[in-house]
Amino acid sequence: MPVYNPPLRDMQFVMHEVLNVSAEFQSMPQHAEVDAETINAVLEEAGKFASQVIFPLNISGDTEGCTLDKTTHEVKTPTGFKAAYKTYVEGGWAALSCDPAYGGQGLPLVVNQCLYEMMNSANQAWTMYPGLTHGAYAALHTYGTDAQKDTYLPKMTSGEWTGTMCLTEPHCGTDLGLMRTKAEPLADGTYKITGNKIFISAGEHDMADNIIHLVLARLPDAPPGIKGVSLFIVPKFHVKADGSLGERNGIYCGGLEHKMGIHGNATAQIVIDGAIGTMVGQPNKGMQAMFVMMNAARLGVGNQSLGLTEVAYQNALAYAKDRIQMRSLTGPKAKDKPADPIIVHPDVRRMLLTAKAYAEGGRALAIYSSVLLEKAHNHPDEKVRKDSDEMLSLLTPITKAFLTDNGYNAATMCQQVFGGHGYIKEWGMEQFVRDARINMIYEGTNTIQSLDLLGRKVLGNNGATLKKFGKLVGALVMEEGVNEKMAEFINPLAVLGEQITKFTTEIGFKGLQNADEVGAAAVDYLRVAGHLVFGYFWARMAQVALREIAAGNTDPFYVAKLQTARFYFAKLFPETATLMRTARAGSKVLMDTDAALA
Amino acid sequence: MPVYNPPLRDMQFVMHEVLNVSAEFQSMPQHAEVDAETINAVLEEAGKFASQVIFPLNISGDTEGCTLDKTTHEVKTPTGFKAAYKTYVEGGWAALSCDPAYGGQGLPLVVNQCLYEMMNSANQAWTMYPGLTHGAYAALHTYGTDAQKDTYLPKMTSGEWTGTMCLTEPHCGTDLGLMRTKAEPLADGTYKITGNKIFISAGEHDMADNIIHLVLARLPDAPPGIKGVSLFIVPKFHVKADGSLGERNGIYCGGLEHKMGIHGNATAQIVIDGAIGTMVGQPNKGMQAMFVMMNAARLGVGNQSLGLTEVAYQNALAYAKDRIQMRSLTGPKAKDKPADPIIVHPDVRRMLLTAKAYAEGGRALAIYSSVLLEKAHNHPDEKVRKDSDEMLSLLTPITKAFLTDNGYNAATMCQQVFGGHGYIKEWGMEQFVRDARINMIYEGTNTIQSLDLLGRKVLGNNGATLKKFGKLVGALVMEEGVNEKMAEFINPLAVLGEQITKFTTEIGFKGLQNADEVGAAAVDYLRVAGHLVFGYFWARMAQVALREIAAGNTDPFYVAKLQTARFYFAKLFPETATLMRTARAGSKVLMDTDAALA
Repeated sequence: MPVYNPPLRDMQFVMHEVLNVSAEFQSMPQHAEVDAETINAVLEEAGKFASQVIFPLNISGDTEGCTLDKTTHEVKTPTGFKAAYKTYVEGGWAALSCDPAYGGQGLPLVVNQCLYEMMNSANQAWTMYPGLTHGAYAALHTYGTDAQKDTYLPKMTSGEWTGTMCLTEPHCGTDLGLMRTKAEPLADGTYKITGNKIFISAGEHDMADNIIHLVLARLPDAPPGIKGVSLFIVPKFHVKADGSLGERNGIYCGGLEHKMGIHGNATAQIVIDGAIGTMVGQPNKGMQAMFVMMNAARLGVGNQSLGLTEVAYQNALAYAKDRIQMRSLTGPKAKDKPADPIIVHPDVRRMLLTAKAYAEGGRALAIYSSVLLEKAHNHPDEKVRKDSDEMLSLLTPITKAFLTDNGYNAATMCQQVFGGHGYIKEWGMEQFVRDARINMIYEGTNTIQSLDLLGRKVLGNNGATLKKFGKLVGALVMEEGVNEKMAEFINPLAVLGEQITKFTTEIGFKGLQNADEVGAAAVDYLRVAGHLVFGYFWARMAQVALREIAAGNTDPFYVAKLQTARFYFAKLFPETATLMRTARAGSKVLMDTDAALA
Repeated sequence: MPVYNPPLRDMQFVMHEVLNVSAEFQSMPQHAEVDAETINAVLEEAGKFASQVIFPLNISGDTEGCTLDKTTHEVKTPTGFKAAYKTYVEGGWAALSCDPAYGGQGLPLVVNQCLYEMMNSANQAWTMYPGLTHGAYAALHTYGTDAQKDTYLPKMTSGEWTGTMCLTEPHCGTDLGLMRTKAEPLADGTYKITGNKIFISAGEHDMADNIIHLVLARLPDAPPGIKGVSLFIVPKFHVKADGSLGERNGIYCGGLEHKMGIHGNATAQIVIDGAIGTMVGQPNKGMQAMFVMMNAARLGVGNQSLGLTEVAYQNALAYAKDRIQMRSLTGPKAKDKPADPIIVHPDVRRMLLTAKAYAEGGRALAIYSSVLLEKAHNHPDEKVRKDSDEMLSLLTPITKAFLTDNGYNAATMCQQVFGGHGYIKEWGMEQFVRDARINMIYEGTNTIQSLDLLGRKVLGNNGATLKKFGKLVGALVMEEGVNEKMAEFINPLAVLGEQITKFTTEIGFKGLQNADEVGAAAVDYLRVAGHLVFGYFWARMAQVALREIAAGNTDPFYVAKLQTARFYFAKLFPETATLMRTARAGSKVLMDTDAALA
């Protein structure tokens, strides 16, 4: 059976020793009192919920899956899912970082970030049920009317109701402008909505009393394309004036997808058959609110793969210490045993350390991003809000694509450590790979993320935001450039910081002549940017570790951190050499291929 | 539903235009009459068998899986598998390249190679039932007594009986020296065998009349470790003197594994409960015969991933042309449609061309290897036999590991082309990924392959065999070095050819001081060697294409080949830059990590 130990120590390290989040919170009135002790205490309990309540349901949920009653259109989730959700709601976990105005606990988002990392490690399929609610909550919180907020947010905050995002249709995934679902205005100000949605995660289930679908649809007079899309709240059950549940609305599950993974989550085909909904935000401006959901979801998907990377790593490490097979190339190590544990082999260590370096680098980025999101919403200084939002917009596609590509590779490597046993369901490793696979696809494929990063977030403002990140890198280089002990971390980072500026300008110029040059370079570019970001955080983590060691701290945690940082810079970061070369190969080798792709 | 079109044209190109296999066969008496027409005609029919008989059973076989009757220990294969196998046997496909002395058709191995590529594309799980027989056949053909050969080979040649390789035990996979299965000699010269084997592919099924298990076990007085392992034939049913089937032997299926993929193949736990067997070869020399099976299996596993790469590519290409979504970055291409087909996007082309370049490069290597195997067995000149065997021994771990790593990546990319639909079972893409995953693990993990390549095949003879391959590269560079049109292919190949010599020497010297340096570099090294081999074949393929075009041939096949060669050298080959850098990072960053991996 797989194991999972919440990585509380590493979370504490990133939050308190590297990023000093409490200092950030002191400038925000609503969080000024939140100290490290409070955060740590909450996360310790959160870790127990993840590891003790939902982790034991991960394999069984995958094996059992969800079932649809085609008569009632009700979905039964795997055994134990509903009870675990009840525990979640009763524990107040749904409300952790929600607005106290609607019953939330008002804790900083970083706490929710860490809760979700652990829940994703424990059970991604289960975690998507509450997880989807947060995006819907955010969209309503930002764009809902007071009446809508009063009706829906308290129950979504408590977790009694969950939310969904109903975007995709059979013929339109990436290209939402092709959407056909229709919304007709009714005399009472509501809308009658008709259409078919697919791939709706947590789209139907038996875990909550009501499901609040946020549905993209077109008004009768809507302009074509993406500028004619509006957003609607379409609850599964109507909500009466007193807040109690009324009649069933005309929105139901018409089928469940058979998927590679996340079997425990109901991926629903949703039939909307004259359902009644209310509009969120302005007519034909649905994409604004949709992007509030989508950006939350993209960070959430990166966090899913962070969770899977961590749990896959923990299990592969345990196996590599336990499994004896062959002798070390340098002579027997476990002389009392008939063979050595496989962790003596350099390549087994490479696979393990790859996962570890990706998990810990990803955790630093994810926690940093959650602080940016906090500041973007809650900082009293408008400039800080704006700057934080801008930086987060740069880091969002990197978090989504880089963490999910890395997560799939890491899960695959951790599975490889198990040899043949990794291919067998009972060990749990193959499920991590299957679950991790969806994260590269949904909420915008990783190709879409790369175009968002390079086309919109970087070239779209002439590299201004990237330069701001570059300043952080530059400041660290200035600070540590003469510290010999930091040279192995700072030097490659400094080089990449300079290279990426030139690299970006180059692609920008080529892109002006031919937009396909941007598309041809984007995926490679995103990974280069990902390593700039990871390199920055790994250097900062190494900096803290070196300082602690210099100060006489003998906690082996810091030695471990340095070893992993060294591995990262020596074995993973150099990927940038090839990526810049292949990106520079340009678009011709891709586009001048009609005969090859005939 | 997925599609599959046998890539006959490309096989013909490699066999007849690049490698000129018929000229090779003329020097071998038994094949001197085999011309291109004969080969092509057989493969056309083979392609029909693969695409029409077993391809339609691929998804259904995965969904249904195998079932074990725990009372009778009999395994039921998925619906249609048994009937398809009957068609296979009746069509004579089992006997294609087998020895005419035992009823085989005696066609060159290259024909069998191409048959199996197509069957692997069509249905890897099904193909493993007949596929495992070839390794057992080869071991018996080489090491069996005349009596053993007369008893077993005719029925294995016809396909009436299938074979297995019973190596792995719960506590020993890679490290066969830990094996516990016991063989006690009996007075009549047979052996009574007792033990437990796991992960036995095609270990039990209802498709053939008898199953010939080749079982590794230990004699009572055997020395410890790998030098005390012997090989035995243990048939499911005893075979009477007249060749008819006798009593059930004490070897049966105790359980089936629940796996990530290849659900249609029965991966059996095999209980050997006092079964009677006869020895193959000499006592305690079982590993010799085992390696005949194993080398065949390793080439076969590379071929499995070649097949999956091809079929995944074909489906992704069809989808990319059909699916409309978004507009080209350079403006609308399909102006009559609401969106452009996604093949207009550079990154979609990158994913498709990656799979195509891996498939076609892999096909060239696999066909070349099958000709080497032919020459190693059947060439009248002993030196040619020896040289061919030596070169094949170098290329075997490359074929196994490089093709299977590439195949998994390619299948993952092809799945990505489908967006969300790639994650849904009905489209078939996720199955290709799940099936491809095992190929990196079984018959020696890819890490083991890399140690075999670098440690044994390269450094083990001071790079002598690698230098022989280098001479082929050098000859091509000499031949085409001044041809401007070949420069884009020849220049990077020539550079890598020089780099790899230095790189190998460097690792060799470091390895003398510290054997872990070899283990630390091996996986990166194998991929570099893989690109040297692929680069060589891609340059040769481009050479033929350029000559045909220069000669006025207007077949777009040659333009396609050139475009794919260009893509390969521009976008895939440059991976070697990073690989050499990370390999040079050495073992310290991996081994000095005890705190990190505590």
